[in-house]
Amino acid sequence: MHETGPAPATLALPLPTPIRWTDDGRGVLILDQTLLPEREVWRELRTLEEVEEAIRSLRVRGAPLIGITAAMAVAALAASAQEEHGPPGADELRERVASWSRRLGSARPTAVNLAWALERMRRASEDTGAAKDGPLPVAARLVERLRTEARRILEEDRDTCRRIGEHAVDLIGPGGRVLTHCNAGALATGGIGTALAPVYVARARGRAVRVFVGETRPLLQGSRLTAWELSRAGVDVTVLADDMAGALFARERPDVVLVGADRIAANGDVANKVGTYGLAVLARHHGVPFYVLAPTSTVDLGTPTGAEIPIEFRSEEEVRRGFGVLTAPEEVRVWSPAFDVTPGELLTGIVTEAGVARPPFMSSLSEAVERAGDRERRP
Amino acid sequence: MHETGPAPATLALPLPTPIRWTDDGRGVLILDQTLLPEREVWRELRTLEEVEEAIRSLRVRGAPLIGITAAMAVAALAASAQEEHGPPGADELRERVASWSRRLGSARPTAVNLAWALERMRRASEDTGAAKDGPLPVAARLVERLRTEARRILEEDRDTCRRIGEHAVDLIGPGGRVLTHCNAGALATGGIGTALAPVYVARARGRAVRVFVGETRPLLQGSRLTAWELSRAGVDVTVLADDMAGALFARERPDVVLVGADRIAANGDVANKVGTYGLAVLARHHGVPFYVLAPTSTVDLGTPTGAEIPIEFRSEEEVRRGFGVLTAPEEVRVWSPAFDVTPGELLTGIVTEAGVARPPFMSSLSEAVERAGDRERRP
Repeated sequence: MHETGPAPATLALPLPTPIRWTDDGRGVLILDQTLLPEREVWRELRTLEEVEEAIRSLRVRGAPLIGITAAMAVAALAASAQEEHGPPGADELRERVASWSRRLGSARPTAVNLAWALERMRRASEDTGAAKDGPLPVAARLVERLRTEARRILEEDRDTCRRIGEHAVDLIGPGGRVLTHCNAGALATGGIGTALAPVYVARARGRAVRVFVGETRPLLQGSRLTAWELSRAGVDVTVLADDMAGALFARERPDVVLVGADRIAANGDVANKVGTYGLAVLARHHGVPFYVLAPTSTVDLGTPTGAEIPIEFRSEEEVRRGFGVLTAPEEVRVWSPAFDVTPGELLTGIVTEAGVARPPFMSSLSEAVERAGDRERRP
Repeated sequence: MHETGPAPATLALPLPTPIRWTDDGRGVLILDQTLLPEREVWRELRTLEEVEEAIRSLRVRGAPLIGITAAMAVAALAASAQEEHGPPGADELRERVASWSRRLGSARPTAVNLAWALERMRRASEDTGAAKDGPLPVAARLVERLRTEARRILEEDRDTCRRIGEHAVDLIGPGGRVLTHCNAGALATGGIGTALAPVYVARARGRAVRVFVGETRPLLQGSRLTAWELSRAGVDVTVLADDMAGALFARERPDVVLVGADRIAANGDVANKVGTYGLAVLARHHGVPFYVLAPTSTVDLGTPTGAEIPIEFRSEEEVRRGFGVLTAPEEVRVWSPAFDVTPGELLTGIVTEAGVARPPFMSSLSEAVERAGDRERRP
């Protein structure tokens, strides 16, 4: 009924990729996501500390994007180390890569893409050690290799997003009413997003689509970021406060819920932005299909269930004075997990670049990871 | 196991009643609830327009309190009309009472207590018409009668709150972990609140109790008001963002959910602050008891089901720039119902001053209303 071939060119969204290298390749430029939608500010990160701060304070966020950022930053730091202090030995550079990776890897504990991307960078740095010949000194080749690997991570992510969008576009019912949470869009990835990818594909194919998104307190990634990028891309988007989700199901009944993920355990339990689990329970109560959309790099087969996923708790101040205004008394405790875990039983399916995985996830997820690996290994 | 006699004197909370008459009786003083917790400002209301504005903009809020406010304001406006313009005729004053009531009654459509209190004032104004004798002129007697009726509404509410607290205190399990939403406490009533009444009674009896409350976007009655009053009263209170409720059920499992109500239909469907329904679905999913606590004046036997309750939608700006900061793009739509409807099937019980009503609510609620009426009619 609908085309399933490659998405047309209109998929080039009127949105910037939220990260790029500086012209000299020794730093990265990020769109500071804490300032949207009021201001579009690009921030230059040139030191390990700046990159770490940007990840911790959510200037860059979104599981795929923090992986990409960490990888591109490692490549930039390596280039910088080589230029500024003269070529360090390859072994020293390799050690530095390992040390930067440890620091950046611990900036946020829940999303597995960060660790995954840094592990790819570490392995890339080992690769080069083997090839002792070639025209460049080994350290220079290592810097090149890191840059190539980071670029590959970015490009693969772009391709992954597009594939997720194509696999999932038909999951949006004919009514086209999508509920999402937080931001799993272009601002969270190197491409057209994960949860929002099928929205963009549907729109490019001329289908009617309307997106609802909760504010996503405390940092409002829904009302600030998802609303901003969808509205810029000409998609009909409506914001609600998070506590209005129940009323939305009762009065406006979305056709489908589409969300991203920060880590998916082997059994299909999903850690995603806090609030996801509540929506999954509502979706089940109302018989609305609920899908998680994420690259296979978010699937962590080494984590058996959601119970083993470390959940980051954030500062009380993000809730207490998130807008510069005191919104809860100083002396009162705040409970602020950044993520929750949605049990696999509540999911209709998990969409990766390898297709739509259905329950039982224990087998379908490992198959997806394997298929994706095969694809990557193809020339 | 526990005393069920009258609550001890420590129930006098270290909190002000959020409304009183001005010394001259021709205005009301309200604690401006839009400015808490940062500032405690008392605002004097002397005109119909000021009262209407205060109710519409939620300077006074909470179903019982807006009923009390409207009643006290009508008495004050009557006193003022009599003093300033010389005694108007009783018929003219009666007409004015009817006209003020229409204006104030439409300030907020969902809570039935507003209409209920104004109807009592209207009936009180009719009462006096019959007694043509007595030492005072009839208009002066009418003003007195209105003042007495408003005082009675306030005092009955205080008594009602205490009774609700006593009926409900044993619904808080031995763990003492209560989840509530919005503010149904002292700031919403003339007494110790509705949903929070059993918390205060438990505390007065020396029982351990810990309250969790969601912020309650957009106007943050949970983090601003419930947190403020519980903390002032020395009750352990923890604030969470509304989208963290699912995580709270999964990780911290409250023993019971206690919420207030703005209107209860004859079949037990409950309109309350938006967000309540989502908590009821989570409570059912987790097997946690869920109670609604409200005076019988909130029960509207004339509304058969929740589908007939008018739901107020509020300004987009409350979500879009609730903190003076742009938190969603200007051009994006906002969907902002102030209330949702929780079907009676999801409730474990409804607690009024007449006791704990259990399903089927069609019979238990009308019995509660009848019992409460009998009590009121006793001298």
